[in-house]
Amino acid sequence: MHTIEYKPDIPIIRMIDQRRLPGTLEVLELETLEDVIHAIVDMAVRGAPAIGITAAFALALKGRSSTKATYKAWSTELGQAGEQLLESRPTAINLRWAVEQSLEFIQTLKDEALPVAQDKLDAFVQSLADEDVEINRRMAAHGAALLKDGSTVIHHCNTGSLAAVDYGTALGVIRYAHESGKQIHVLVDETRPRLQGARLTAWELDQYGISYHLISDNAAGYFLQTGQAEAVLVGADRIAANGDVANKIGTYMLALAAHDARVPFYCVAPRSTFDLRIRSGDEIPIEQRPEQEILSIQLGGEQIVPSGARAFNPAFDVTPHRLISTFITDSGLIAPPYPQSLKNLLEEE
Amino acid sequence: MHTIEYKPDIPIIRMIDQRRLPGTLEVLELETLEDVIHAIVDMAVRGAPAIGITAAFALALKGRSSTKATYKAWSTELGQAGEQLLESRPTAINLRWAVEQSLEFIQTLKDEALPVAQDKLDAFVQSLADEDVEINRRMAAHGAALLKDGSTVIHHCNTGSLAAVDYGTALGVIRYAHESGKQIHVLVDETRPRLQGARLTAWELDQYGISYHLISDNAAGYFLQTGQAEAVLVGADRIAANGDVANKIGTYMLALAAHDARVPFYCVAPRSTFDLRIRSGDEIPIEQRPEQEILSIQLGGEQIVPSGARAFNPAFDVTPHRLISTFITDSGLIAPPYPQSLKNLLEEE
Repeated sequence: MHTIEYKPDIPIIRMIDQRRLPGTLEVLELETLEDVIHAIVDMAVRGAPAIGITAAFALALKGRSSTKATYKAWSTELGQAGEQLLESRPTAINLRWAVEQSLEFIQTLKDEALPVAQDKLDAFVQSLADEDVEINRRMAAHGAALLKDGSTVIHHCNTGSLAAVDYGTALGVIRYAHESGKQIHVLVDETRPRLQGARLTAWELDQYGISYHLISDNAAGYFLQTGQAEAVLVGADRIAANGDVANKIGTYMLALAAHDARVPFYCVAPRSTFDLRIRSGDEIPIEQRPEQEILSIQLGGEQIVPSGARAFNPAFDVTPHRLISTFITDSGLIAPPYPQSLKNLLEEE
Repeated sequence: MHTIEYKPDIPIIRMIDQRRLPGTLEVLELETLEDVIHAIVDMAVRGAPAIGITAAFALALKGRSSTKATYKAWSTELGQAGEQLLESRPTAINLRWAVEQSLEFIQTLKDEALPVAQDKLDAFVQSLADEDVEINRRMAAHGAALLKDGSTVIHHCNTGSLAAVDYGTALGVIRYAHESGKQIHVLVDETRPRLQGARLTAWELDQYGISYHLISDNAAGYFLQTGQAEAVLVGADRIAANGDVANKIGTYMLALAAHDARVPFYCVAPRSTFDLRIRSGDEIPIEQRPEQEILSIQLGGEQIVPSGARAFNPAFDVTPHRLISTFITDSGLIAPPYPQSLKNLLEEE
């Protein structure tokens, strides 16, 4: 199955519960908007493309189960649902992009009978999901050309099928290279605090038969410095017009280490991750997540600190564009000098 | 009590079992050389100064419990014990320093009756331990002058009392500043994989009444980049003649982030941590520790990765001297240009 699926006939949203992996592969069935918002906030589903499509699905689910009798009441209700979804996680722009795309589409339905509008909205959000998979495959093909046969790459967080509807962004590039017959070995950053690398990326690599070793995030610099990695690949949660990248906490330090070792640092992201309305990374809101993610290693796990200890837990950081060697997008590769090259490509279409 | 103590009358070495903190404060009583080596390898005791003094204590313990009848047999046995101790952990030079100091001292005992030699060796290793505490206080006084009242500092690993006989290196500087009436807030790197920050440094800061927040190692760059930290302090396991610093894995990436944010990066280490016999960090052996430290979060804890997953676990990395703002030593502060400034100070005495 896909990471997330929408079943309008029931109606429900089904998703792999990413909090339970790799120990348990459990599928959640969500019936209400509130359930979906909780799943996003609590990170049962995570990854910028995945939460974008989940939000679009949530709007269609809400539209399908609505009891409103008029288009006006129905679309107002969905507008409010969109607002609630936007508040669930602030950093990844894909969520805003998907909500805005869906609400704009809803505006085009105002002359339809409600059952028809519901059907059309269902079809629209499904097309966004299908497109997401296509986009990822296209990005992967562009990016895989950059990876040499026999090379070792460092990967941060999880950016695979689980972070999208399917295939993924940075991990999609690695997968495509592997499926093209290249031998790629992955050093998997465990990615504290939520361990998306250790739990999710390792699990995905097992599925694809790609070889890997897990490393602590602290060790990435050592492997770069000692010439044991030929490339670094990351995804993105939001990219500003100047090319600054908000991504999972730790990306900035990893980019510094790649830069210091003169190893290429690739950021893999679809056009929906670029937020051309903001000039630089300074304007990207950084989500601060619960302290408990730091104070115990796994949610519900044993506390690892003295009782009463406090923590700060920013979930993302901003990597300045000067540290990005190349952006791998569905429209092709974008190399420096930024922001001019970004502007050229992204405004083309 | 001190982190480690030698009781020649029994004879035993007592040490706080650092694997059990912060949950349990347990004191180990070790009766044999083999027990002590196991405690070092398994990190019941860790921290460059602490394992140095532990090794010296272990030689005295071995000397005290020896059944050899002649000085020659006795000193040969201790020479072999020294070799075994040197193999226990390869990176920190303090261990080699302490073993060499002790074995040199043993050479001076060749005209003594064995019971006298044993007494003198006991007194010698105790003097090393006492001196360690004195040295740490001296370093702390030098370093505390660099910390501003009201400042927030980032600290990696554990470098406090637990990493030494008492008082510590980098954490000693923070403690001295606090005891001098300065308000210092510490951002404590949790320090994967063994969580010395979360488990040990947080515990120590609680004892001293110093305020702190725990952060994931990945987040240090965020706090530096956003101007929320005024200094970074680390210890060292070995410093080459050119000023390159081997220290706990992650130090290099932290130094890069401090450098990028133009925040001072202080390395706090006694003269026994400087290894003037090697020219650069390239010559420092990096210990590779068991995979299990990465595959489960705590030794004996739940596995966090798919079964069959492998890991790499380098315990240290090398921070190039160009990233060190100032060395804080028992002989005073050493500022660039290195290596000349290091050479001047260290060859003075």
